[in-house]
Amino acid sequence: MNRQAIQDSYPDELSHCYGCGRLNPQGLHLKSYSDGQETVAIFTPQPFHTAVPGFVYGGLIASLFDCHGTGSASVAACRTLGLEPGKAPRFVTASIKIDFLKPTPMGVPLELRGSIKENKGRKVVVSMAMTAAGEIRARAELVAVEMPEQMRA
Amino acid sequence: MNRQAIQDSYPDELSHCYGCGRLNPQGLHLKSYSDGQETVAIFTPQPFHTAVPGFVYGGLIASLFDCHGTGSASVAACRTLGLEPGKAPRFVTASIKIDFLKPTPMGVPLELRGSIKENKGRKVVVSMAMTAAGEIRARAELVAVEMPEQMRA
Repeated sequence: MNRQAIQDSYPDELSHCYGCGRLNPQGLHLKSYSDGQETVAIFTPQPFHTAVPGFVYGGLIASLFDCHGTGSASVAACRTLGLEPGKAPRFVTASIKIDFLKPTPMGVPLELRGSIKENKGRKVVVSMAMTAAGEIRARAELVAVEMPEQMRA
Repeated sequence: MNRQAIQDSYPDELSHCYGCGRLNPQGLHLKSYSDGQETVAIFTPQPFHTAVPGFVYGGLIASLFDCHGTGSASVAACRTLGLEPGKAPRFVTASIKIDFLKPTPMGVPLELRGSIKENKGRKVVVSMAMTAAGEIRARAELVAVEMPEQMRA
């Protein structure tokens, strides 16, 4: 597993994401890593990230998929373009489909794994699964596109 | 527009949702309302809910769609079953597809509108759009199902 988090290779001006930006003090600070052909991230929800008592909030799971997916796309694009991680283009989510298969219990780490389904350079499709307590609880497919110019302040 | 928020009609034991539960002090407290055949919710992101500076985080938008969608399903089920809002069944998200059409600017209220696309009692499909600064920024389709028994502690 690569030791630097994908999100920690983003330049400072693109590191304020609530889900994964190292420069957002109130954020979730999700960290994704390359792991062979896959990507992986581990996240343990806070006690207040509940849907109903005992179960994790779906919006949090969606947020984790969002940042893990765009990070995975960034890595894929680096490979295609022959760039080092620090030079990775920043991707954003064009669309995401999430299937919540089973309720996700609180109090255990969530493991997200991603793999690249399609890689067309500026558009990357990422398949992901989220496992908790040994069972896949949710799956997602995310279409990531290179960040539009208007979002660069 | 109905004056009581849909989420405020949920019983106490089902009101700890991070996105919309009135009993979750750290939560977002989204409030959705019936408005004729539609449902509406207004939410202004906090300054730290950023994707990149100036633009709203997609995971937050997904979270708002999640709670607005399940709330909308609850209202639809009440109508079908002839129940008062306080007796509404609690729905959870089975799947959600979100299309992010345009970047969403920070510093303005987001308006979510929902309408019922399919209503089969225990399964309800909700179509939603989110508008900011006069333009639709994202659309979502959410499949809501009545909360499984195992989630009731």
